Amino acid sequence: MSELPLTPLTRVRRHPERGSHDLELIYRILDEAYLCHVAFVYEGQPIVLPMAYVRVDDRLYLHGSSKNHMLNVLAQGAPACAEVTLLDGLVLARSQFSHSMNYRSVVVFGRAQVIAEASAKRAALAALCDRLAPGRSREARAPSESELKATLVLALPVHEASAKQRRGPALDDDEDLSSPCWAGVLPFTQSFAAPEPDAQLQPGTPLATSVRRLLEPRSRGAQGLE
Amino acid sequence: MSELPLTPLTRVRRHPERGSHDLELIYRILDEAYLCHVAFVYEGQPIVLPMAYVRVDDRLYLHGSSKNHMLNVLAQGAPACAEVTLLDGLVLARSQFSHSMNYRSVVVFGRAQVIAEASAKRAALAALCDRLAPGRSREARAPSESELKATLVLALPVHEASAKQRRGPALDDDEDLSSPCWAGVLPFTQSFAAPEPDAQLQPGTPLATSVRRLLEPRSRGAQGLE
Repeated sequence: MSELPLTPLTRVRRHPERGSHDLELIYRILDEAYLCHVAFVYEGQPIVLPMAYVRVDDRLYLHGSSKNHMLNVLAQGAPACAEVTLLDGLVLARSQFSHSMNYRSVVVFGRAQVIAEASAKRAALAALCDRLAPGRSREARAPSESELKATLVLALPVHEASAKQRRGPALDDDEDLSSPCWAGVLPFTQSFAAPEPDAQLQPGTPLATSVRRLLEPRSRGAQGLE
Repeated sequence: MSELPLTPLTRVRRHPERGSHDLELIYRILDEAYLCHVAFVYEGQPIVLPMAYVRVDDRLYLHGSSKNHMLNVLAQGAPACAEVTLLDGLVLARSQFSHSMNYRSVVVFGRAQVIAEASAKRAALAALCDRLAPGRSREARAPSESELKATLVLALPVHEASAKQRRGPALDDDEDLSSPCWAGVLPFTQSFAAPEPDAQLQPGTPLATSVRRLLEPRSRGAQGLE
């Protein structure tokens, strides 16, 4: 896959060696997290809020109530920034100064577009549902006309974006290597606990296939945490 | 503990029943996550970046290189917003529309102050280190004068902030309850994998006490994921 162009916004200023504009890496990180953090400016004030999202092709889809304040500001073409970070581990060094975290992050800059056309809107909402558990949109009832009307769907293009990641061990100064202090990495693992069936399920309802598949260890891939 | 005042910025607009200004809840969420997402405005553009942080009393401490662009913008008194979200589970409903996530989040608005005085700066950096593993700052070498000089430490007051959380089951419409579709909550659990000792450790170096304690199941508390 290709590289996204370097722009003043996507130049990685600190630790540029940890930065990347590789689209495959950017997509991989975006496809692993569940939440993005969307920033916008309202009356000069920066505001950042967490949001579910899904990437389809070169777009991030966001959704919410048609009365959602942030989505309405973005729908008017306000500049947006969406950030996703997977935290992979704590980096414990011999010096306080060299403590760090291992992570993979993406920052996307752009202006969102409203997805108004009904079939495109339905497809985006199905993709958002499938992001939680692949195949889930075919198990759950599709949106009614009124639900569709009550939902605002936006697409943020992934055209101006960068990834940044830190991996590997602590980077202590040479002078600190003789220290008796333990150093190392403490990796995070994320997993699902046992599903909690709804109290009002019809008797004998089997676990959804989408959820069963999600819980099969092999299907999950290397889930970082978010 | 008390409630923070309701301001135009901290009024929870969507699902106000999920919002809170209870300081104890706000602190509890802030003390559980490892990363916050800090937004600022640069030349009209919102930018949001992930940052390590620690809360001490009514302040969030941020730190980074003294050349860090965002920290320098914030050091000049630019309005900031810091958001923290713990993702607790996926909410799988009978309708696509009612799918959701369980989470606990905090949004803080304010302007940061530079912590320049050496002993306050050292204390903040030790607290940031201890946030990774309580007690770690006593095990690791304290910052040298030049490391201290190379680090910018900011404090963001937690005076204008709100929490928002979603808990509990899927909220399907009554008409959907007869659906044969499985519904429920899939909770996340976060844990640490086995520590990865540094390749250059002095032979026989025991695991740090701080890390050993962090890995003891009882000491960890209910870690959500971030």
